[in-house]
Amino acid sequence: MENNPILIPERKLSAFVVDVLSAVGVPTDDATIVADCLLTANLSGVDSHGVVRLAHYIRRLENGTIKARPHLTFTRTAPAMGLLDGGDGLGHVVAYHATTHAMDLAAEAGTSVVVVGNSSHFGMAGFYVLRMVEAGYAGVSMTATDRMLVPYGARKAFFGTNPICFGFPTDGIPVVLDMATTSIAWGKVALAAVEGHPIPDSWALDAQGNPTTDPRAVAGLHPAAGPKGSGLAMVIDIFCSLLAGMPWGPHINRMYAEMDAPRHLGHLIMAIDVNRFLPLARFKQNLAAMVQELTALEPAAGFDQVHYPGQLEGLQRAQRRATGIPIEAGLADELAQLGQRYHVPFPAS
Amino acid sequence: MENNPILIPERKLSAFVVDVLSAVGVPTDDATIVADCLLTANLSGVDSHGVVRLAHYIRRLENGTIKARPHLTFTRTAPAMGLLDGGDGLGHVVAYHATTHAMDLAAEAGTSVVVVGNSSHFGMAGFYVLRMVEAGYAGVSMTATDRMLVPYGARKAFFGTNPICFGFPTDGIPVVLDMATTSIAWGKVALAAVEGHPIPDSWALDAQGNPTTDPRAVAGLHPAAGPKGSGLAMVIDIFCSLLAGMPWGPHINRMYAEMDAPRHLGHLIMAIDVNRFLPLARFKQNLAAMVQELTALEPAAGFDQVHYPGQLEGLQRAQRRATGIPIEAGLADELAQLGQRYHVPFPAS
Repeated sequence: MENNPILIPERKLSAFVVDVLSAVGVPTDDATIVADCLLTANLSGVDSHGVVRLAHYIRRLENGTIKARPHLTFTRTAPAMGLLDGGDGLGHVVAYHATTHAMDLAAEAGTSVVVVGNSSHFGMAGFYVLRMVEAGYAGVSMTATDRMLVPYGARKAFFGTNPICFGFPTDGIPVVLDMATTSIAWGKVALAAVEGHPIPDSWALDAQGNPTTDPRAVAGLHPAAGPKGSGLAMVIDIFCSLLAGMPWGPHINRMYAEMDAPRHLGHLIMAIDVNRFLPLARFKQNLAAMVQELTALEPAAGFDQVHYPGQLEGLQRAQRRATGIPIEAGLADELAQLGQRYHVPFPAS
Repeated sequence: MENNPILIPERKLSAFVVDVLSAVGVPTDDATIVADCLLTANLSGVDSHGVVRLAHYIRRLENGTIKARPHLTFTRTAPAMGLLDGGDGLGHVVAYHATTHAMDLAAEAGTSVVVVGNSSHFGMAGFYVLRMVEAGYAGVSMTATDRMLVPYGARKAFFGTNPICFGFPTDGIPVVLDMATTSIAWGKVALAAVEGHPIPDSWALDAQGNPTTDPRAVAGLHPAAGPKGSGLAMVIDIFCSLLAGMPWGPHINRMYAEMDAPRHLGHLIMAIDVNRFLPLARFKQNLAAMVQELTALEPAAGFDQVHYPGQLEGLQRAQRRATGIPIEAGLADELAQLGQRYHVPFPAS
């Protein structure tokens, strides 16, 4: 997938992200949260949500549509429930604090729902769930995004790719299902565009609502499993946008195409204290047995092994922690130039 | 789909269900809950989860693997959380009470999770969610089921079809997404078997893990959207079976094939009090705007209109309430014979 990637140690790449964010006025603690989120994506092999997004965040921080020092306001609206206003801050920082509140509430009430408004792109949904499962909670995270998914039976994009993530604690690699509601990952379309080859006409629609084989003409993706992915995208938009009183569906600010206004994104974070249902150790034991039996199943033709959700990402994290994170040459150039603007040397140079 | 169906008024069909259940010792209140659940499915057009299942429930009530008068035990394990032991009762009755507890807890805490153990087949997942949305809650229901879904990359069934349902209150037909995690509904396979025609070889696998075109040889269905439906089925099994300490995956008692033991099924019910985030009237107004814009989208080729989840079921309920419920001749015969055993006349006869 990458053209001559260079391998950069996690620690050095993380320090670079922190230093660049700090240079545009983001407090060190907040910059560290963003770096953790981006690096967790890169380590997990989810490079589409890693440092490739840094230049975009910097542009929005510089034009003020993301605030470097936002005012976050948390309101506990019920014993197990809260609303976090993100003050147009970095989504990673806002969602990180929402996750802390969700765990605090669940520690008291057993479970909790925290809805977030006035946020922005929060990176990889699994980052927040990984934090919760490490603390012994079952966790759910989801976010609204700007329009890309063409509803079942329609011709044009209306909902976002609206990812949802579920996770459960284990003693090994946690079970984490992190999925978009579209059938094809946007990253595959973007890659075809970069590499200049056509895509199958079943993947996507153009701005007129017709199937297209030109990856640069894509204006909408089909939902996963037709009415199911389409319905899930709507459910997630209701949970994230409507419960938070934010813009929804086609009214959500477009991440890249509408750079002149804050994003006003909504998210939802939920925590469940497993220990209040049964001893955490027993839960982990039972989940380990499920994972063991599942991964021991005879694989289908074309598969080496049956994997559980989050397993490959966990294996990738261990490997990339040891070997470094592969950064493709074009991205390395972009990051090096970004660093130069703020007198932060890129670790590869 | 039906062969010479007869139309039976909801009220008469419901009374028949109540009378037959009462005849095998189910208390009237409980029999009424089961009848409401089955009739809601039939009214909604989800006939696979309606009165067609009555004979099965009666067989299990008669052999004692479902208890007519179960002892239900609710333990509030945390302020927003509870565990309901269903005492091997009818799943509809058990899940109905779990839903009541979930709403009671959410009325106090804002949100709640109730996990259910020692239950049995609970019918249509949407029945419990419809109750919650009518009371102004956003609701989630899900259940473990016996093995049918072949995990992504595997050859044999391991998880159940494990349906999940989400719903939100409106002033009209509520938004209700009720979906199984398999790609093809079991009902389509069953219909092909009854009608004696082959199925496409992409639909299902036989007991040896090979694709089959014989609907009577089907032993496993593919997950919806590959790893996504497969992962969701696992997530639902963890929420329903593991949190409740119940058997999971391939260890779950088979509804039809293992009639000699109780089912020990787990479910999960969740309620969110919308009103604790924003005034319910404003939420409904915003959701109505979303629904209006979505359904006004230009339809794709082959579609008359874009629908929202639960809309067609709601329209069907209104129509069947007026015209009666179509019961196909073979099912009418089966129900009439069942009624004769308990001296309960079938309303069509």
